[in-house]
Amino acid sequence: MSVQALPSQPSSLQIARQLAQEFAQTAAERDAQGGTPKAERDALRASGLLALSIPTQFGGLGASWSETFEVVREFAKVDSSIAHVFGFQHLMLATVRLFARPDQWQPWFEQTARKNWFWGNALNPLDTRTLVRTFAGWREFSGKKSFCSGASDSEMLIASASDESAGGRLLIAAIPSGRTGITLHDDWNNIGQRQTDSGSVTFERVRVEENELLLDPGPLSTPFACLRPLIAQLHFSNIFLGIAEGALEEAREYTLKEGRPWFKSKARHVSEDPYILAHYGEFWLGLESVRVLAERAAALLDEAWQKEHALGSDERARLAIAISTAKVAATRVGLDLCSRLFEVTGARATHAALRLDRHWRNLRTQTLHDPVDYKIQELGEWALSQTRPTPSFYS
Amino acid sequence: MSVQALPSQPSSLQIARQLAQEFAQTAAERDAQGGTPKAERDALRASGLLALSIPTQFGGLGASWSETFEVVREFAKVDSSIAHVFGFQHLMLATVRLFARPDQWQPWFEQTARKNWFWGNALNPLDTRTLVRTFAGWREFSGKKSFCSGASDSEMLIASASDESAGGRLLIAAIPSGRTGITLHDDWNNIGQRQTDSGSVTFERVRVEENELLLDPGPLSTPFACLRPLIAQLHFSNIFLGIAEGALEEAREYTLKEGRPWFKSKARHVSEDPYILAHYGEFWLGLESVRVLAERAAALLDEAWQKEHALGSDERARLAIAISTAKVAATRVGLDLCSRLFEVTGARATHAALRLDRHWRNLRTQTLHDPVDYKIQELGEWALSQTRPTPSFYS
Amino acid sequence: MSVQALPSQPSSLQIARQLAQEFAQTAAERDAQGGTPKAERDALRASGLLALSIPTQFGGLGASWSETFEVVREFAKVDSSIAHVFGFQHLMLATVRLFARPDQWQPWFEQTARKNWFWGNALNPLDTRTLVRTFAGWREFSGKKSFCSGASDSEMLIASASDESAGGRLLIAAIPSGRTGITLHDDWNNIGQRQTDSGSVTFERVRVEENELLLDPGPLSTPFACLRPLIAQLHFSNIFLGIAEGALEEAREYTLKEGRPWFKSKARHVSEDPYILAHYGEFWLGLESVRVLAERAAALLDEAWQKEHALGSDERARLAIAISTAKVAATRVGLDLCSRLFEVTGARATHAALRLDRHWRNLRTQTLHDPVDYKIQELGEWALSQTRPTPSFYS
Amino acid sequence: MSVQALPSQPSSLQIARQLAQEFAQTAAERDAQGGTPKAERDALRASGLLALSIPTQFGGLGASWSETFEVVREFAKVDSSIAHVFGFQHLMLATVRLFARPDQWQPWFEQTARKNWFWGNALNPLDTRTLVRTFAGWREFSGKKSFCSGASDSEMLIASASDESAGGRLLIAAIPSGRTGITLHDDWNNIGQRQTDSGSVTFERVRVEENELLLDPGPLSTPFACLRPLIAQLHFSNIFLGIAEGALEEAREYTLKEGRPWFKSKARHVSEDPYILAHYGEFWLGLESVRVLAERAAALLDEAWQKEHALGSDERARLAIAISTAKVAATRVGLDLCSRLFEVTGARATHAALRLDRHWRNLRTQTLHDPVDYKIQELGEWALSQTRPTPSFYS
Repeated sequence: MSVQALPSQPSSLQIARQLAQEFAQTAAERDAQGGTPKAERDALRASGLLALSIPTQFGGLGASWSETFEVVREFAKVDSSIAHVFGFQHLMLATVRLFARPDQWQPWFEQTARKNWFWGNALNPLDTRTLVRTFAGWREFSGKKSFCSGASDSEMLIASASDESAGGRLLIAAIPSGRTGITLHDDWNNIGQRQTDSGSVTFERVRVEENELLLDPGPLSTPFACLRPLIAQLHFSNIFLGIAEGALEEAREYTLKEGRPWFKSKARHVSEDPYILAHYGEFWLGLESVRVLAERAAALLDEAWQKEHALGSDERARLAIAISTAKVAATRVGLDLCSRLFEVTGARATHAALRLDRHWRNLRTQTLHDPVDYKIQELGEWALSQTRPTPSFYS
Repeated sequence: MSVQALPSQPSSLQIARQLAQEFAQTAAERDAQGGTPKAERDALRASGLLALSIPTQFGGLGASWSETFEVVREFAKVDSSIAHVFGFQHLMLATVRLFARPDQWQPWFEQTARKNWFWGNALNPLDTRTLVRTFAGWREFSGKKSFCSGASDSEMLIASASDESAGGRLLIAAIPSGRTGITLHDDWNNIGQRQTDSGSVTFERVRVEENELLLDPGPLSTPFACLRPLIAQLHFSNIFLGIAEGALEEAREYTLKEGRPWFKSKARHVSEDPYILAHYGEFWLGLESVRVLAERAAALLDEAWQKEHALGSDERARLAIAISTAKVAATRVGLDLCSRLFEVTGARATHAALRLDRHWRNLRTQTLHDPVDYKIQELGEWALSQTRPTPSFYS
Repeated sequence: MSVQALPSQPSSLQIARQLAQEFAQTAAERDAQGGTPKAERDALRASGLLALSIPTQFGGLGASWSETFEVVREFAKVDSSIAHVFGFQHLMLATVRLFARPDQWQPWFEQTARKNWFWGNALNPLDTRTLVRTFAGWREFSGKKSFCSGASDSEMLIASASDESAGGRLLIAAIPSGRTGITLHDDWNNIGQRQTDSGSVTFERVRVEENELLLDPGPLSTPFACLRPLIAQLHFSNIFLGIAEGALEEAREYTLKEGRPWFKSKARHVSEDPYILAHYGEFWLGLESVRVLAERAAALLDEAWQKEHALGSDERARLAIAISTAKVAATRVGLDLCSRLFEVTGARATHAALRLDRHWRNLRTQTLHDPVDYKIQELGEWALSQTRPTPSFYS
Repeated sequence: MSVQALPSQPSSLQIARQLAQEFAQTAAERDAQGGTPKAERDALRASGLLALSIPTQFGGLGASWSETFEVVREFAKVDSSIAHVFGFQHLMLATVRLFARPDQWQPWFEQTARKNWFWGNALNPLDTRTLVRTFAGWREFSGKKSFCSGASDSEMLIASASDESAGGRLLIAAIPSGRTGITLHDDWNNIGQRQTDSGSVTFERVRVEENELLLDPGPLSTPFACLRPLIAQLHFSNIFLGIAEGALEEAREYTLKEGRPWFKSKARHVSEDPYILAHYGEFWLGLESVRVLAERAAALLDEAWQKEHALGSDERARLAIAISTAKVAATRVGLDLCSRLFEVTGARATHAALRLDRHWRNLRTQTLHDPVDYKIQELGEWALSQTRPTPSFYS
């Protein structure tokens, strides 16, 4: 962490680790319950970490993306729902930073840091049911949005709507979550990521002021603005990696404490069984590959972020490829590990009280955000023809 | 089915399919609940299928193993808990057939067919906590057993205990589940196979008569008696295959009805997307391999079964290898399919109401019965040195 | 084999095994040389096996497709070049049987059986450089064809040409290889399948009589005629399987005779090393899957073949899928095994004198006949939408 | 490269690239020939690169290990035999550096740099056929060694022998290759790495002086001395990676220039075919993972190297794991790519003139140096129990 604290003050990472330890106590139980993790969200507010990525001059902790994702991973190891809404907090902040004018995002940054605002997402660009009407000096959003992670219990919302009068142009706004006409539905009940509140939001004639619209430079307008989807994708990579790391850690403890060699094994202890070791060797190989890919991608993102408007398309493309590579690897390695871990713990580890299946459920759910097949295709186009990925909200 | 019915009477397979259709209506809901599927067990009783594998001369339906497993798979496609206890019913019947004298198993067969008895399992030979005391003319079983699938709501129990006075020799008995001293605990609460009642049983000074002991020829005493673990292993293979077939069918319906091509796809309909097709092609390839392996193994089992005491060790070994091959393939292919199926349905298919994750949870749980690594080793010993698998309760 | 021989006469399979044993002596050396295996082709002629699939009423051995492919595999285990031209012999015979009139193919069958004719292939429908000119009562073929397996040293040739006056319609003829204007180039020098003579053929104004054309019912004209590409595909599956079986057998002998456990292994003999056993287990699993798939497909082909013109499109489609499944499995399993086998033999098995790499080279070359990706797609279309493969020379 | 040259002078990497371009012209042909690449070895001598890793104060180019391996990879892309003997040159130099006294290795370094000596390997510690006899002031080596890469045409040799009078203790010496009694056999004729001269060496009463023995600190004596096997392992990783990178580059050029979409593809150009792109995407994913793992490992090695005797066992263990991880990944990814690349080029790319199979043959041969299974085990022991790899000549 670049944030230098007084010797007696804990670093952001230390704070995160302490929070993670607390979250871990109830993570399995909360996975069963679903719903909004209100206490944990409030603990995040109280910790100051909602301002982690906000520069110090705006009252934040000034963390780089590498540092921010390190915290995301720390949470994901024990509670990937929390990790997701926490990472999205910083993605939402990046969204206003990248798509809006300084006189817009700077006050938002300051207020977020000062008031510990939580930002939620209602941007899903593939869901075009929310439409815009334009009035003199303001707009009106009406319709529905699905997959609005972190919208519940948020102070601010990034919302998008389609302007049919302008050929379906996507308009994005930053608005208070409590504004009249916004209903946050408590309708997320899925097999994984159960406390991400990724349900739907309804907009009924919601008034949006001009200076709440992110128009200058606007979405995906410059190579720098096009960092937004890359931050999202690298956020996912870190969630996936963190889930797998946490799952491995749980498996490891179970093997060492509870494991017994199969009666045909010549090993005295399960930790010497050649096949158990082979599984752990494969797990290590996979995770280590993902770790170096994810860390390298984060370092490149930090470099690109610092270049701001000097960032070129080619450099942005190389970063996009580095991030896609990390994301595909994290998806593959993670799913394999979270399913195969039971082969190093044995049948008794399927006991419901352990909820060891939640790692697979969480990862399986979150990895469906956008299809891995088309990420592979992107990598193939680059590898074969040096074709740059076309910037979109998914690339 | 070899059972010839009057034209107006449905075949066993037709009866099973009709039952399966009913079970399917509530399978997802019952997966959430766990516990004993009392209504479904009673429907099985009423259907006559509990006597499916019992020869007609004892009042049963006279099905071969191929036919019996076809029914197991039919159930597994929609409800793998039911499939498991149903298959174990026939494994328990095979156990008395193979380990006991005709004057023992014939009356048990007749009564099972006449009274629609359900048989439960308390045999787990790796759990040695149940001990035997020997008295003049009878024995006493005391202790605990884990993983007792289908013991709840059963009429008869196959139980085992360790005779420490005879060097830990395994004694197996067939006893009424309601006998004084037997407590069936309702303590199975695991991530999958949630209605198999695979919890624990306590024996408190349970009296076992001599003619309830399966001593002649006794467990694993001859190549024919050694078919018992092979039936168990082939039962598992069919459960695994059925789960995967059912999962694929659900995925297919979802893709066709709800799927939409990703915005980068050139396909008009998701059913023409090249990557979606590649996934389905892989699913087919895997399942088809397992199907031919499982069917070939069942045909070989039927041959071996008919040979009775003429069955030789070498033929038994070849059958063991055919069954292990099918089981490993079913494990691998099934786990891959049940995890990857979400990639052909997309994120919305993670909705909890669909409980599409239950296929992976069921398969993941059941495939941990015994480690696939040591099955692979067995195949390797055979392939390299023609070493026969050593008969045990797992080979 | 259905061919009943006098007790003292060897069966076709026995003859094939004896020949295979001879071919094995020089297979590695001939792989180094390349070129036409004249002595081995003449031994095949002398053996009578060139008439293996010809019905007995035409002087052949009357073997079914299952039996014919069993012989192909027997050859492929030791010499996949020989196996390929031998299998293509029977594919060429099937071609005239399926595409021509009885008064055409019957004499060809009889003469082949009587004179031990070898048939070569110059049919490659994707190479459209050979054109037709039509005259009164005869045609003229001019141009080039690539990948003409078995054309060298053949008596008869199946050749195709494109009739541009009829919209590029494919015309296929059976003609003597020695006819004026035909030049068989000795230009096959590839990394594998080095003695298949799969080089090019030039046609310079080659006269083709009307009754040499396969017009009635013509290529791919009926479901029965559409068996031709399926026979080709199943032929490939059996070549692939045979190569892998032969490679495994060589590896096995090497491991047992020459292998030593790695210094970190706890095994006294390499045959007890857990990782060596795991590799052999995987090899077995793969090969056994392919074997059952290939044998099932051959049995289905025999059924379809016997139905002749009663064969329906749906049954032909199911057979096509069964064969594609076997082919994809054989490709995957074989390539993996032929590359990985060195991990059970160790570094010294790379000695050039063993030429153990030829299995991978042969399989790698032959598996490129048509892309496995589009076979998978075919399986996917079937699995998802029950779409039948469109008959072509590759499906 | 840290070596700062005058603007007009090419860097070591530039020199290497130029040499590589020359080597590439004849690499396929020389693969066919086998034997000693005398002209290329002399070109290496003339280039000054034999002193690449020698510190500048001893007349070398002062390259770090990261820089040295970058050059190894550059050669491996086009000629992995050259790359291997070149990398082993620097491994041999590291061997004297790590196992001997400064008054021994410093003169060897100086003379190597001044006279462009090539060092060969005759150290194989698993081949214990060379024995030591001890005399007053000198020793005598007699016996045979296999796998002596780069011994032919070398000026110096690192040789080992077993001292049976000291319990089989391994003695290692640096001696002139031309010394009386040494015979370098020209007997390397294997399926791959055909110009590495990895044949056998015979020692007939070869006199070895005391000051030629590497006794102080001696082999594997300290954590720093234990870097020797790690350098060897990282050398292999870079060879494997370079081979795969070179293979991909050849495949890419072939696809773009010669490839045509399969007739069932909807793509106009092969570079848009979804399955071709998927293969390239997978290739990229694999190679990129290996690249970051290998580069990270090299950076860690450079750190460890600079610590010299301050290097601790724990840090050495972490480095060992980082290197093993890279090596296993490079092995797996490389073998897959070198076999699968034909699926993006098609059947015509099997033409012998291209010798595209040499990448697989080279990699397959070199990856057998020590079994990947036991590397995986090492990773497993680390991942599960934090057990450090036991230093040996392979770990």
